[in-house]
Amino acid sequence: MKSEQIKDLLGRMTLEEKVGQLSQITGEHYVGKVNEEMVETGPDFSSLSIKEEALYTIGSIIGVSSAKITNLIQAEYLKKSRLKIPLLFMHDAIHGYKTIFPIPLALSCSWDEEVVQKTAEEIASELRAAGIHVNFSPMVDLVRDARWGRVMESFGEDPILSGVLGKAMVRGYQKSDGRQIPQDGVASCLKHFAAYGGAIAGKDYNAVDMSMREFFEYYGKTYEIALEENPRFVMSSFNSFNGVPVSASKELLRDILQTKYHFEDILISDWGSVAELQNHRVAASPKEAADLAIQAGIEIEMVSTTYLQYLEELIEENPALLEYVDRAVLKILHLKNDLGLFENPYVDEEKEKTHHLKEETLRFAKEASKKSCVLLKNNQVLPINKNTKRILIVGPFSSTRQLLGNWHCKGKFEDVISLKEGLIDVAPQLEVQAYETLEECPAQAMRNCDFILVAIGENWQLSGEGHSSVQLELEPLQRQLIKDVKSLGIPYACICFSGRPLALQNIVDDIPALLWSWFPGTQAGTAIAELIMGKDTPSGKLTMSFPRHSAQVPIYYNEYSSGRPANDSSYSNRYQDCEIGPLFNFGHGLTYTNTTYSDFQLSDENITENNEIIISFKIHNPSDYDYSEIVILYIEDVISQTIRPEREMKKFKTIPIAAKQSVKASMTIQMDDLKYVNSKLKRTIERGNFNIYINDTTKPIFTIEY
Amino acid sequence: MKSEQIKDLLGRMTLEEKVGQLSQITGEHYVGKVNEEMVETGPDFSSLSIKEEALYTIGSIIGVSSAKITNLIQAEYLKKSRLKIPLLFMHDAIHGYKTIFPIPLALSCSWDEEVVQKTAEEIASELRAAGIHVNFSPMVDLVRDARWGRVMESFGEDPILSGVLGKAMVRGYQKSDGRQIPQDGVASCLKHFAAYGGAIAGKDYNAVDMSMREFFEYYGKTYEIALEENPRFVMSSFNSFNGVPVSASKELLRDILQTKYHFEDILISDWGSVAELQNHRVAASPKEAADLAIQAGIEIEMVSTTYLQYLEELIEENPALLEYVDRAVLKILHLKNDLGLFENPYVDEEKEKTHHLKEETLRFAKEASKKSCVLLKNNQVLPINKNTKRILIVGPFSSTRQLLGNWHCKGKFEDVISLKEGLIDVAPQLEVQAYETLEECPAQAMRNCDFILVAIGENWQLSGEGHSSVQLELEPLQRQLIKDVKSLGIPYACICFSGRPLALQNIVDDIPALLWSWFPGTQAGTAIAELIMGKDTPSGKLTMSFPRHSAQVPIYYNEYSSGRPANDSSYSNRYQDCEIGPLFNFGHGLTYTNTTYSDFQLSDENITENNEIIISFKIHNPSDYDYSEIVILYIEDVISQTIRPEREMKKFKTIPIAAKQSVKASMTIQMDDLKYVNSKLKRTIERGNFNIYINDTTKPIFTIEY
Repeated sequence: MKSEQIKDLLGRMTLEEKVGQLSQITGEHYVGKVNEEMVETGPDFSSLSIKEEALYTIGSIIGVSSAKITNLIQAEYLKKSRLKIPLLFMHDAIHGYKTIFPIPLALSCSWDEEVVQKTAEEIASELRAAGIHVNFSPMVDLVRDARWGRVMESFGEDPILSGVLGKAMVRGYQKSDGRQIPQDGVASCLKHFAAYGGAIAGKDYNAVDMSMREFFEYYGKTYEIALEENPRFVMSSFNSFNGVPVSASKELLRDILQTKYHFEDILISDWGSVAELQNHRVAASPKEAADLAIQAGIEIEMVSTTYLQYLEELIEENPALLEYVDRAVLKILHLKNDLGLFENPYVDEEKEKTHHLKEETLRFAKEASKKSCVLLKNNQVLPINKNTKRILIVGPFSSTRQLLGNWHCKGKFEDVISLKEGLIDVAPQLEVQAYETLEECPAQAMRNCDFILVAIGENWQLSGEGHSSVQLELEPLQRQLIKDVKSLGIPYACICFSGRPLALQNIVDDIPALLWSWFPGTQAGTAIAELIMGKDTPSGKLTMSFPRHSAQVPIYYNEYSSGRPANDSSYSNRYQDCEIGPLFNFGHGLTYTNTTYSDFQLSDENITENNEIIISFKIHNPSDYDYSEIVILYIEDVISQTIRPEREMKKFKTIPIAAKQSVKASMTIQMDDLKYVNSKLKRTIERGNFNIYINDTTKPIFTIEY
Repeated sequence: MKSEQIKDLLGRMTLEEKVGQLSQITGEHYVGKVNEEMVETGPDFSSLSIKEEALYTIGSIIGVSSAKITNLIQAEYLKKSRLKIPLLFMHDAIHGYKTIFPIPLALSCSWDEEVVQKTAEEIASELRAAGIHVNFSPMVDLVRDARWGRVMESFGEDPILSGVLGKAMVRGYQKSDGRQIPQDGVASCLKHFAAYGGAIAGKDYNAVDMSMREFFEYYGKTYEIALEENPRFVMSSFNSFNGVPVSASKELLRDILQTKYHFEDILISDWGSVAELQNHRVAASPKEAADLAIQAGIEIEMVSTTYLQYLEELIEENPALLEYVDRAVLKILHLKNDLGLFENPYVDEEKEKTHHLKEETLRFAKEASKKSCVLLKNNQVLPINKNTKRILIVGPFSSTRQLLGNWHCKGKFEDVISLKEGLIDVAPQLEVQAYETLEECPAQAMRNCDFILVAIGENWQLSGEGHSSVQLELEPLQRQLIKDVKSLGIPYACICFSGRPLALQNIVDDIPALLWSWFPGTQAGTAIAELIMGKDTPSGKLTMSFPRHSAQVPIYYNEYSSGRPANDSSYSNRYQDCEIGPLFNFGHGLTYTNTTYSDFQLSDENITENNEIIISFKIHNPSDYDYSEIVILYIEDVISQTIRPEREMKKFKTIPIAAKQSVKASMTIQMDDLKYVNSKLKRTIERGNFNIYINDTTKPIFTIEY
């Protein structure tokens, strides 16, 4: 359809039909409850308190998928709809639709934009084949508190990394530089604007409060960067921000998101969050909630129906709203057109059957999983010695297939490769036994094995939305298991599965080697097996700091300087009963390669607007592994008018480097990289020195001057 | 001295002499190290890097006390000083000088302005007799996180209560409505401006970040209220606030403290915090630190010497600073005059000998301690049955005299009454045995006793400045002790000593009765014994919420509403592994009285600017105890444009009520009490309903309308 036709269509719409486009409901209202692609009950919309006609004005559907079901609903809808504007189907495929990739927090540990983009591309293909047009992903909420269950959906604690990986994901979903979205692409919905990850005390749905400087420099910056890739949607967050629920916040949605960050596309609420303005006690009725939300800029109301019920009335009372509504509807119609839905609103049911869990998708998923694992500790234990004959895997994760992580969409455990299966697959010469506990393990198996893998972690249901925790320590039974294994005197290593950083201070000394595999997804077992058997080297680096103790949160690498920096004295910025700093810091991650850096060179010591600085160096990989080295560059503004952290990550690169090879690499710093938001909320730079650090160097590699 | 004479004196001062007045150093530079009123070494000022002459321009001294020593220093100073302007002596007598009162957090649980004021009066008398002119107290920093060690110095989590008790303390110290400070009074220094208690992650000296709305409505409000009492000093805090170290923050010190809050008196830094601007990395040198501090408004530099070294130079470079300096010096001279120091800079050494630990002071200290204890739980165990003959006290606090709490100034453990001593004193008929552990207790003593007091807690060194903790649970040995006592089948109760709320979820079910005595001070044992023996009833109520788990922090009663209020569902504002809300809430506290409330009446349902509302009610005390009932009134703004908490404490009263008596009481609400700071930072009220709650009622007593 051409632009004029869309305008013409808008002109023919009644107000009721326009309001319908701004409303999103679940699919069962049309066809009944769906389970495994089967419709189980009859359609029922009585819970919606709307007229039946209104059902056929709705703009989009959430919560159903598969070609068959979406086609069924689409057909039912189009049959009864006056203007026959196709429905949009939207879904939450956070890290995969049927092929499940590592959870986003894991993926971010690859620091690899290409891997992240390709992951999104694969997800988009599977989604679109299942009739889905919009994916509620990526989430780029900055996180600093492992108590918050949704850290698993995030890209960690650095604003630039989160933003850049968010961009990669948007790019991967939408598969287009322009407005057209190809037939294997989906529109991306960036979420959750804004600062949802800043929930007070790490408690989901809690209020968020921060200075605007903190917002622009950290929490807001992730969205600002990701928005450069033009996601078609932004979702407003559940939280209140500085006293105003976001779905009612003109300041955040209009002044910042739309005006300052130039977002011009569709703004959707989160599930029920418009009606929830009543729980926030800023709206006395559903009508007031609708009014606040539309005034603030919410263009599609998800699941709750205050727009359906009251928006017409509100427009009658305040005709100025009509312009907002028309603009929103136009954007939605354009998106439907860009997706090609006016030409073909249906999806090929036959094609879908061969489109999921494809071999090449699974192969890539395995690569992504490998790059997401982080080797946190290794006292010369891993990779497992080639002469090893008998391996015992013990622990609750020894042979489970529940390795997908939360939000695993239509991913099935039966499709997952367990750790045991992966090991057998990768090392068929090995004799592998697996038990959940040592007690179940026959004495002989214990005595005879050459190596023990302790497979521990936190169950996947314990992270994700609504799953905030106060207890971040590994559960006592698992700690005991590690101690029991240690007492056997057989070489061992721990593999840990988790959706969040855990607090390991009380057990880490008993762990000689620790591979943090997060939730690696469908290909979990093979990916891990290839790493621990030494077919490939782990190469991931943490994107979220690990606290030592549950109460050592929030914790993050880029904390501000203190007037009394942490040291041996009590009278310094520390806890008396906890060692200083995280147990494993942001950026930490080991390999098997003993890679060395040398020949650091600086193009110039002075940086100016027109003179960028190039830092070049040599990396030597003396090992037999081909892999990608993650290089992370930090700056430190030595003296600034407003305080800044001692380390700010400004650049990162993944540099492929073959076995036994050296490569030259360089990273560029522009003056803009040194700027920051000062206390007057001005993005600025002051004259002075800036120290440059690479990876975890404690002393600056270089000092440059502006 | 008259005002003109002071001005004349200022006119005769050299710039060096003026700078000296703005500098505070420790006393040993004049006379040598002092220990127990004995000078142990010779004078030494080499560490100061100043000229000897400068030593005799200094305005004030910190860290020494006693008539003898202060006189010695004063005499030495005046002898060599050109203009003979007497020194001010300043000290930290946080909750007592020699007679130690309950820690401030405990005192606040009395909710009793008179008790707090009288405490300050007693402290002032002892201080002044010891040659001290200024007390660095009260601290009114709002606190919400029990990890922070300095919660012990605070008045808890409510801004109004903290502010009002802060005022009472200022009143008690200064003993004057006017500018003259009597011979038994001291100038009060309100601290630490600002928001020091908001340290991120409860870690002392950490950065603070919050919206300005949060500041004006909560953290700033405590100071705003307390400032109404005209403390002669305010101390700037160690922390940075929204990116700027407070001692360099024009926004906080000039725009808010001086302009908005109208503070016109002397602004002093905290210990070393001017020089520490270098650690914050906003100053590249001591000179830059001095410049930032003087520009921001710091008038006396405590302990560090950047003013002494660089202020003259800075004034030469920027003559406009001289006006600031002159104004500051004038204020200091006025204070010295208001204290009568120009007439007599010395203190009576003979009088001091009889002025400490006076009988009437101790008697009052006992009353204050009794009112500070909070009975958190009581399954009909306390008071101890009159027929009890043999009591066993067991636990680390059973007979220790270390019950003063941190910052106990010149208080001596030898002057403290231990729990065992108190019990013997109060109930001489009892046979009392005390052991630190059950293992030490002879089997016969265990078998024969009628009642066991388990005396547990957290050592006094573990709270206070620089003593932040991640572990808030009672230590494992003490939890085991409680379980062991429980297994004996003998009636028992727990007395807990602590400088902070602890997290008791994992043991509370094994505690049938729990008296939280904080650190009660010199009269600890007698005070507690009178309560547990039923001579008086406990009557305190918590001013800080108790978390269930170390990581359930920050936690406070006045949390904002959420769009998904905490309930049984995971998808609500809660932790999955922790019950909802604190274990013991703000305002919780039991008595022995079974007091009832009735006959609630409302003067009017409509409130206007000119029509205040009076809520009246009857309280009946059916018990044999004379005591003071603490009545707490909360409001809830049902709907507001900016979100507000469901409960906001607006009024409180302590109402004396004799045994078997009923009293009529009333509380008044003015429209101003209903106002709040909205998201535009405007203090305002919107039309609508306000619910009124008294104490822990879950349903509103009344709803009023504006």
